[in-house]
Amino acid sequence: MRLFLFLMAMVLPAADRVDWIWSAGHVITMDPARRVIADGAVAVKGERIVAVGTRAEIDARYKAAKRIDRHQAVIAPGLIDTHTHAPMSLFRGLADDRRLQEWLEKFIFPAEAKNVDAEFVRWGTRLACLEMVLSGTTTYTDMYYFEEVIAEETKAAGLRGVLGQTIIGFPVPDAKTPQEGLARAERFIQRFQNDPLIVPAPAPHAVYTTPDEILRGARALANKYRVPMLIHLSETRRENEESLAKRGMTPTQLLESLGALEGRTLGAHGVWLDDGDLAILRRRGTGLAHCPSSNSKLASGVARVPHILNFGIAMGLGTDGFAGSNNDANLFEEMDLAAKMQKVSTLNPELLPARQALEMATVLGARALGMEKEIGSLEAGKRADLILVRADAAHALPMYNVVSQMVYALKGHDVNDVMVNGKMVVRERNVLTLDAVKVLAKAREYREKVARSVGLQ
Amino acid sequence: MRLFLFLMAMVLPAADRVDWIWSAGHVITMDPARRVIADGAVAVKGERIVAVGTRAEIDARYKAAKRIDRHQAVIAPGLIDTHTHAPMSLFRGLADDRRLQEWLEKFIFPAEAKNVDAEFVRWGTRLACLEMVLSGTTTYTDMYYFEEVIAEETKAAGLRGVLGQTIIGFPVPDAKTPQEGLARAERFIQRFQNDPLIVPAPAPHAVYTTPDEILRGARALANKYRVPMLIHLSETRRENEESLAKRGMTPTQLLESLGALEGRTLGAHGVWLDDGDLAILRRRGTGLAHCPSSNSKLASGVARVPHILNFGIAMGLGTDGFAGSNNDANLFEEMDLAAKMQKVSTLNPELLPARQALEMATVLGARALGMEKEIGSLEAGKRADLILVRADAAHALPMYNVVSQMVYALKGHDVNDVMVNGKMVVRERNVLTLDAVKVLAKAREYREKVARSVGLQ
Repeated sequence: MRLFLFLMAMVLPAADRVDWIWSAGHVITMDPARRVIADGAVAVKGERIVAVGTRAEIDARYKAAKRIDRHQAVIAPGLIDTHTHAPMSLFRGLADDRRLQEWLEKFIFPAEAKNVDAEFVRWGTRLACLEMVLSGTTTYTDMYYFEEVIAEETKAAGLRGVLGQTIIGFPVPDAKTPQEGLARAERFIQRFQNDPLIVPAPAPHAVYTTPDEILRGARALANKYRVPMLIHLSETRRENEESLAKRGMTPTQLLESLGALEGRTLGAHGVWLDDGDLAILRRRGTGLAHCPSSNSKLASGVARVPHILNFGIAMGLGTDGFAGSNNDANLFEEMDLAAKMQKVSTLNPELLPARQALEMATVLGARALGMEKEIGSLEAGKRADLILVRADAAHALPMYNVVSQMVYALKGHDVNDVMVNGKMVVRERNVLTLDAVKVLAKAREYREKVARSVGLQ
Repeated sequence: MRLFLFLMAMVLPAADRVDWIWSAGHVITMDPARRVIADGAVAVKGERIVAVGTRAEIDARYKAAKRIDRHQAVIAPGLIDTHTHAPMSLFRGLADDRRLQEWLEKFIFPAEAKNVDAEFVRWGTRLACLEMVLSGTTTYTDMYYFEEVIAEETKAAGLRGVLGQTIIGFPVPDAKTPQEGLARAERFIQRFQNDPLIVPAPAPHAVYTTPDEILRGARALANKYRVPMLIHLSETRRENEESLAKRGMTPTQLLESLGALEGRTLGAHGVWLDDGDLAILRRRGTGLAHCPSSNSKLASGVARVPHILNFGIAMGLGTDGFAGSNNDANLFEEMDLAAKMQKVSTLNPELLPARQALEMATVLGARALGMEKEIGSLEAGKRADLILVRADAAHALPMYNVVSQMVYALKGHDVNDVMVNGKMVVRERNVLTLDAVKVLAKAREYREKVARSVGLQ
């Protein structure tokens, strides 16, 4: 028998050896032709995708060490979250249905001042990673404190992160001054600049909280290390009005006047951008993060997403924080809501169709982060970031249109398997990289501490 | 040992025997005081709740034949869907992101004409019941054809249904004329009028599709049998404008002029109701169904929910159809979206807080249907319709505010156990009353037939 196999191997054309083949009833590639392949498969070797095609094609050409085959399922690119604050998972639902100032001043700022330290950030990141990867997010974009701890935990969890060390004009848990924040950001970038999973970044909070010279400094830092800069941009009407009143410029004009957009930048929210702002952002190649849950729950407003996309600006989707602004980190919900918000706010049901919502969560998110050559679609040569979504439950059937089903019917919970950078992170809904029992127990512990700190029972 | 137990039983105060005790970390009662009981329990005997209290109180007083105890969980009233078209589950996602007229005329009407018969309705109802009960819906309100088949299947699935036989002014799959539809509705009502699970109803489709004399006839029929009448009401701007142009009255004024609101009525949507309409509806005690997914996805508009509730009108939540208008039947998503839509459309984050969204899915839905004495809250004497929702996943922790968590963080998928009218329908996410494998296989079969009928591949 062994001899026979040996002889066969000599005679037949040698199949290329790969590490993994995944196959499913449908593969959504998000490649330039937006192919959806029926009975499709993806071959992975090392950290990268080596081929995408029909299962018959892939099986004829490749021989895999390991396989996942599930017919009633959809394989898709891992989803990309372009804006969140991961450790705030420990504040989930701490204060809902309140005006922004009351929410910030009575709950979030005191809760952060009293609770946020490196240990809080470590457990909060673990909780967020657990939740994100279980709903199909493989890359996320963060802005918070102690970002080096977030990077350590993101790597340990096996997720990809574009992680921004916050720099802000008042004392915060990890820096007394913005200068200290800037120095911290530089050390953080130096430490993680060549990491396969982490893209470190400086994250000046926003124009209304960060002094001009610090915005300039953050830009210089980003350009020095060839990393992106992350910033909140025109989230609320008040932010815009104050900028106009105090500086005579919109936040985008102000950043432009400082030269702070001259380099790769990701602006979060962009609800109140006008066409002048958009012209600047397009010229600078700035990417944007649309956060439909946050913008609706905090009543910030409806970003003009179809207009922004038609303008040629890459806008991805972001879940934003967990405390009041969203309450969870689930890009399936953001895709669905992004589409619905546009339709109802314009009374036009054709706006932001399912295809475009899925683009925002994949290829457009990648482009907004400047990572479109590495992630966002299933194509040979790209990083092996992929998800397998079950489509065999009552809410998933019948399946007339796969993309429509992904956006409007399937749920984060339907995500069954997740691979990031060629490594399995979730298998049959078990997160292989995190001790879930321990993380959840710690979340319950923090509940008591945080509740006491803000006077809740 | 037996003698000892016998003697103990003689000496101790006898515990009342009940069929079930459910206990959990939190019980959301939705009683008039809106109590949320920590370490709470519910005792059930026969079809009804006999007591609600702390677990210690309930255990001291009652002895249960069977128990469900789960600490990291929330027990809540079964959710109430006040508007759907259950068999349309088989058209899920057939045509999305289209204008209403194109959607109706090119897809839905042809698909219905070519596919809808009693058998289609039977399998569609089974699929919808499977999905609804797995996301915590225990009562649903339907408007479709062959409603007697829907009633048979709803009973078999063990759900509670307020089921409306459609009556409409053009030939439909189960009636050539509205007169025939009216006669069919009467036979249907006669057959199910004393059913413990089914409330049968006549459902004239809307003022723009149903002749005046038929609207009057449907009202008379409802009043004769003391059942509610269901109707679509001011869903789109076009419906209102056409009514004003052709009849010189809003749809509500027209119904009022016909005497068609003089009796229990449930109006679905109510997006374009003005204050004059609301005054009429309040005087008539009409209930309303708010359908946030449908109204946003089809771009119908944002109903003025807080205003309507402040007016003193009971407005529940509805998922509406599955084909284009929503794509699934999940009241957790409707609660979340109802809150977010109000906030963002008014730029006021305090509007429609979590508490009110949960009221709409429970007590207000019950009141809109005229069933507030029987369902909608966990109180002694009410029907035993209850759900146990797991709260031990990453997205469910930490838990600062139970009601907020229900609305903004927990998912339909977290529903673990469901009881309707004292009978277990879901146990550990297994639906005990339906053959899921068979229902899902049939949904895949119908996919091919329906797709061919409208020229999809």
